[in-house]
This record gives sequence, C-alpha cells and structure tokens, in this order.
Amino acid sequence: MEDIFVGLIGFGTIGTGVIKLLRENEELIRKRLGARFVIKKIADVDIETTRPVTVEREILTTDVNDILTDPEISIVVELVGGYTHAKTFVLEAIHGGKHVVTANKALIATYGNEIFDAADDEKVNIGFEASVGGTIPIIKTLKESLAGNNIESVFGIMNGTCNYILTRMTKDGKDFASALKDAQDLGFAEADPTFDIEAVDTAHKLAIILSLSYGKRVVLDDIYREGISEISWQDIEFAGELGYTIKLLAIAIRRGDTIEARIHPTMIPFDHILASVNGNFNAFHLIGDASDSVFLYGQGAGMMPTASAVVGDMIDISRDIMAGIWRRVPLRSYKKDRIEDINLLEMDDVSTNYYFRFSAVDRPGVLSAISGILGSYNIGISSVIQKEIKLDRDAVPLVITTYKAREKDVQMALEEIDKLDIVFGKTTLIRIEDDALR
Amino acid sequence: MEDIFVGLIGFGTIGTGVIKLLRENEELIRKRLGARFVIKKIADVDIETTRPVTVEREILTTDVNDILTDPEISIVVELVGGYTHAKTFVLEAIHGGKHVVTANKALIATYGNEIFDAADDEKVNIGFEASVGGTIPIIKTLKESLAGNNIESVFGIMNGTCNYILTRMTKDGKDFASALKDAQDLGFAEADPTFDIEAVDTAHKLAIILSLSYGKRVVLDDIYREGISEISWQDIEFAGELGYTIKLLAIAIRRGDTIEARIHPTMIPFDHILASVNGNFNAFHLIGDASDSVFLYGQGAGMMPTASAVVGDMIDISRDIMAGIWRRVPLRSYKKDRIEDINLLEMDDVSTNYYFRFSAVDRPGVLSAISGILGSYNIGISSVIQKEIKLDRDAVPLVITTYKAREKDVQMALEEIDKLDIVFGKTTLIRIEDDALR
Repeated sequence: MEDIFVGLIGFGTIGTGVIKLLRENEELIRKRLGARFVIKKIADVDIETTRPVTVEREILTTDVNDILTDPEISIVVELVGGYTHAKTFVLEAIHGGKHVVTANKALIATYGNEIFDAADDEKVNIGFEASVGGTIPIIKTLKESLAGNNIESVFGIMNGTCNYILTRMTKDGKDFASALKDAQDLGFAEADPTFDIEAVDTAHKLAIILSLSYGKRVVLDDIYREGISEISWQDIEFAGELGYTIKLLAIAIRRGDTIEARIHPTMIPFDHILASVNGNFNAFHLIGDASDSVFLYGQGAGMMPTASAVVGDMIDISRDIMAGIWRRVPLRSYKKDRIEDINLLEMDDVSTNYYFRFSAVDRPGVLSAISGILGSYNIGISSVIQKEIKLDRDAVPLVITTYKAREKDVQMALEEIDKLDIVFGKTTLIRIEDDALR
Repeated sequence: MEDIFVGLIGFGTIGTGVIKLLRENEELIRKRLGARFVIKKIADVDIETTRPVTVEREILTTDVNDILTDPEISIVVELVGGYTHAKTFVLEAIHGGKHVVTANKALIATYGNEIFDAADDEKVNIGFEASVGGTIPIIKTLKESLAGNNIESVFGIMNGTCNYILTRMTKDGKDFASALKDAQDLGFAEADPTFDIEAVDTAHKLAIILSLSYGKRVVLDDIYREGISEISWQDIEFAGELGYTIKLLAIAIRRGDTIEARIHPTMIPFDHILASVNGNFNAFHLIGDASDSVFLYGQGAGMMPTASAVVGDMIDISRDIMAGIWRRVPLRSYKKDRIEDINLLEMDDVSTNYYFRFSAVDRPGVLSAISGILGSYNIGISSVIQKEIKLDRDAVPLVITTYKAREKDVQMALEEIDKLDIVFGKTTLIRIEDDALR
C-alpha cells in the first residue's frame, strides 16, 4: 500500500478535525483511495496545548521549515488562516514542488492569482474546496460537474454567522444586537464580528465563485457589498407581510459580456428554496444554461464539516499523484491562457426591485410627495404599507416596494426624499429579488 | 487544439440535447477543457426524422458498428436506454478500448458489476452521472467530495414523476388518478407509468447510490419498495394535520455492518428541507459522519439538464485522456478489491415510526380494541385522530401514529386488526421519518 506523506501547518480547530477524520476513517479512506495518508509533521506556534486528538510528540514542530523542506512530504495542508504567514507558507510549499490544500478564503480571494500562477509554473495542484461553503462541494461542482454550462447566475448564502443572526431575528423576533450576542455565545460569531456582519467574508467567497464561474481575475474591492447591521426587526416584519424573508445574499448574474456582482441583505420569496436555509447553514443556488437550477446546501463552517472538504481535496490530489499526473482540472476552471480580467457592471447600472421604509410625519400629502419624487425618477410603485405605529418624533413607518428600477435612479430619488422635512432620518433600502431568482 | 472524437448512440431527446449543448457552448467548453469535441458519428434506428438540431447527413448512421469499430473515436455516449441493446453496445465499446458515458440507470443498476469489471479489465472509464438525479452532481459528490466520510444516510427524492404527482395531490387537493393524468398530459409521466409510480425507477437509482456509498454489489430485487398508487387525498390531508408532507423517499441508512435500504411513501416534517422539494425536481439529503447534512437539488430529468450531466462526464473523461491517464477514481468509489456483497437489513427488522389509517365502525370500543392489539405487539401510540367523516359502509377513519416500532410487529398487528369485524378493508400504512432525517 502506497503512503502519501502530508505536512499540516496550523493545529487549530480545523487542523484537529483533519487529524481526527484521517484517524477515525483511516480504513475507509484506504478502501477508497488505495493509499494511506501519513501525517509526517504538524507545525504550529503552540505545540503545548492539549487538543481533542492525541498525536505523537515527535511529529509536532514549531518550525514550519520542517515541513516545507521535507522532500518526502507531497501535500501541505495550510490551516493557519490570514494573509501574511499563510501566503508565505503556501508559496514556499509550491516552490518546493508540493501540492497545497487550504481552507483559507481570504488568501485565495486576495492572492489567488499569484498563488495559482505559481502553482501552474511549478506543476502542482491547489485544493481549496473548504474555502467556500465548508463541506458543500461548490468548487468541484463549478469546475467539473457544470463545466458544460454557462453559469447564468449564482445566489448564495455564504456566511453562517449572518444567516444565524437573521434566522434568530426572523423566528424569535429578536433585534440585531441580541441575535448577535446569541451567535457570539454559541461560538457562531467572533468577539469582533465585523468581518462577518459587514460581508467581508462573503465578498471573499463571492470573488472565488466569480473567478471559477466566469474564468476571471477578480479585484475584491470592486464587488459591491452591504452588511446586515442595519437590518431592524421592523424590516423583517414588513418583509413577512409582503411574503419575503431577508437573507444576506451574494449574487452573481451574467449580463451578456459583463457580470453583475453584489452582496447585500435581500428579500426573497418565502417559497424559494433559499428561504428555507436557516441557522448557520450555507447554500448556493446556481442556474446553468443547460442544467437549470442546481441547489447545494450544507454546513459552511465547523470542525468536522470543514475537515470533510479538506480531506476530500487531499484524496482528490492523491488520486492524481497515484495516477502519475500533477493536475487535470485548471485551477480557475478555465485554461490559464483563457483567463481574463473581469468586467463588472457598475452598481449604479444594476436594476432590481426595491423595498423602502420611510420614517414620515403622520399627515396627509406625505405619500403624494414621496411617490411624486419616485415617479420623477421612473421608479414605479408596486405596493404601499402605511401603519399607525408611532415611532420616536411622531414618525410613522411608510413602506413602499417598487417595480424594477435602476440603482442610480433610486439613490438620487432617496437623496431628494431624505431632504424633505416630512421625512425623518435616512430611509431604509432593501433590495428584492423576484425575477433572476427563478 | 486537441480534438476528442465522440460517437453518439441514440439520437432521441437526450442525444439531441447533448448535440445542442456541445454546439451552443463549443467555445466555452474549449476555454475550460482546452480541447474540442468532434461528434464523428451518431447512430440511431431512425435517421430520417428531423430533430431540433441540424447535423450533417454524413455523420448519421443506422449501423452502430460505424461507431464501435472506429479507432479514432475515444468516447462512446450511450443514450439508447433499456437493457438489451444498450448492454451489448456498452460492452462492445469497452472491449474496443473506448470510454463510455451513459444516462442509463436501468443498465447500470442491473448490469453495473459486469460493465464495471469489463471497464477495469480494458482500462477505460464509465461516466454515469446522468443516470441518477439528472443534472444533480450526486455521483461525483459521493465518489469524490465526500470520499473521506462514512455515509450515515441518504434520503432521496429520486423520481420526478412521483414527486410531481404527490405535489399536485398536496397543493391542489387532487386525487392520484387525476394528478397522474396531469403528469401524463405534461409529458412528466409515460402512457404506462408503472415503472415510475411503482418505484422501479427509484430502485434502480437507489441501487447505484448504495453501491457508491458503501462499496457494495447490490442485488436490485433485495431492495424493499412500495410505490405511490395507494396514496389517497385523505392520507395527504391527515399528514398535513400531523405536520408532515408525503414524499416517495429512497432511504439508505448505515446500521453498523448492515445497510437499511427501502423505498416507500414517507411522511416527513414540513420544515425539513426535503419537504420543500416540489414538482418534478429531485433531491438528495446525505449525512456524512464528518460533513453532517449535505443537500443537493435540481432537475432529475429533461433534455438539457440531463445533457448537462452527460457533457460534464465527457469533459471529465477528456481531462483524463488529455493528462494521459485512463481513470483516477474507482467506478464504485471503492478500490475494486474492496468491493463486497451488500448485507441488507431484512425489512422485518426495520424500526421506524408509523401512520395507520383504519376504516372502522363508528361505535365505542373500537379504539380500545385496536390499541389493545397494537400494545400486545409493543407498538406505542403517539397520537390519535378520530373524525366524524362517514365513508362508505358507515365506516369512519381512525388515524393512529406510533412511536418507533419494528416492521415485523407492525405487520403482525395489522394482520390481526384487519381481521376484526369492526374494521373494514385493508388498513393504510405509511412510514414516518423523524429521527434518522435530521
């Protein structure tokens, strides 16, 4: 039986899960792969703390070079996280002729082009299934199963923290702060949750999805993003009345030669399958021009689900090694010489449906003034909800949903409306997806 | 640019879809694969009828040997369907050293062992993603993405015809006969629907899933199956009252060294994601010991969704060809020398929850008599619904659900109950899944 020697960098939660899984399912993996994984070294700055798996003392090291310079190690599993050290380790592993498996979406989204180019030059493979959607086989599905399809659209719930918070707000009527606190208490959110709730994490994942779906080099900062911290229980209630659930969606839509890419809280119809994705689950709703809808759902994080994806990549790469080849599927799904810079649609030119919640004075003429301004920007009203709920400063909420309108027009109209003295504060805007989300 | 020569056997709906897709996305496929598919010959008994795609007359043939003996053709796509001719063609293609892609679940479920052994001997690959779940990447997910997992369970909606019929019965209150008629009018059901509604088609698919999940040789007839033709609107209504939806589920559960495998109408909780799979969609809910729940959903049939899976397999095999190898993933997910005969749990020994609908006389003592017999077989009652709806012969429906009970006990109890003169006709039994279906 062949041995595949592996070096693991980063012995945190996921690293522990990988060791646990390789050990518990060792015999199963042998039956499927026909080879055995041998963890030759585990590098971490902390090799003293006891983990939930026991490993022999002599395979632990604080010196990553024990892995990077070991000629016997053919696969390096990078589970350090972050950009700086991880990038150095991964590039050194590649230049040492080692295949790399990583769960690091920040690294791939930010330095993917440099890393992939280096891997092409050195004829090694990079497995990054765990970087997007945890255990969900979204990367393999895009690169292999749907390879015959133009990807018409991807709608994804890609961040478990945000989805958990929105689920608690929706199901339990909690406000944002208290749902966030719950998520933190359960370990679903960090002490500093900015990265998740401001959609930075989701942007990393969408950047990777865009790159694979369209064969493009993506500049992370070009992707429009809004987080969930401004969503109130009022908006969730109004959404319910209108037949919608609010989710933080990452959206990619093919529009001829340009790509529409945006991340924001989104109202989606109750009966769409994405609306049934609750708690800390992730999901991807893809539409291919031949496949039609394909929906993938599972745990987007967590020790064992992420380890499942890491080990899946290790097996994938090992099957290539055992077949005597170094790689068979291009890293970005397209052949290297066909990768192009992405051409993103300007957010101003996006057209969708909108929900507005105004805080207005409770007197006649308000609706007329607001609808007049909307009309002057070609924004058609599809429904109005006016309620006698007194807010602070004698304001009442006025909710308006629109037919398809252009983002630029909407922004200009709201700027004008928010200057009216019959309107208090900044108007809440949430986009609605009905059409593209078949 | 490399050319990959392909021969297509069977120019029906799916064959037409494959040609259409290869033509429409030719440039896209080149960008991803770095090669071009050349359809060298298409064989069909009918080469006169016009199809929705135009092909040059000279590539059409009625003689399948024009494909099977052509040394330039490296991939044979078999879309004939059925067992007899398809088997001959596939085995001849294999013995001619050609890779095969097929959408034929009946063939793979029935003759898979013979075909896979021949392919191993001849060092060729067999792509059969399209045979289960149409466009859904269930085969690749089991063989590759989840390769590090013990598959704890698979719950699948694997037949679009049955799911369409049950959806119409549930949403529109139709009875079975009229929902079947709708399905036939829309082309979702055959004129003779037996194969679908009696769950033969689902059994083929479950046999393939079992084989891949557990590395087993499966005997098709060993799988317990019940179709949907006995489901009445009454049962659907009672299910709704109890918080369940009725779906035809194919179920595989790992129970130590044995496997539980069964297909029958099943009540599942409203809020389980499988309950939201409506119309002619298919879905698979897998639980891996590391991955936890993974849910895959999409079109299980149809021209272009099936063509998407066929072309995905063609690209997969071509990537191997271009890398100079003949195969890297074992056909049954496990290495050939680790494949074993399956050890299925006897249906009598299955334990689950049950729904019974008795037709009973409307007088005191009935519930006591029935519950007495159930009790004597160790069947605990979890709920009772008794309604004053008069049926024929003055019978009223009495609905009982149970705690977990053993199938053998249930069958013996019902046999005894059905002999009581206070009970009319044969009692309806529908199994409920609460526990295994997390």
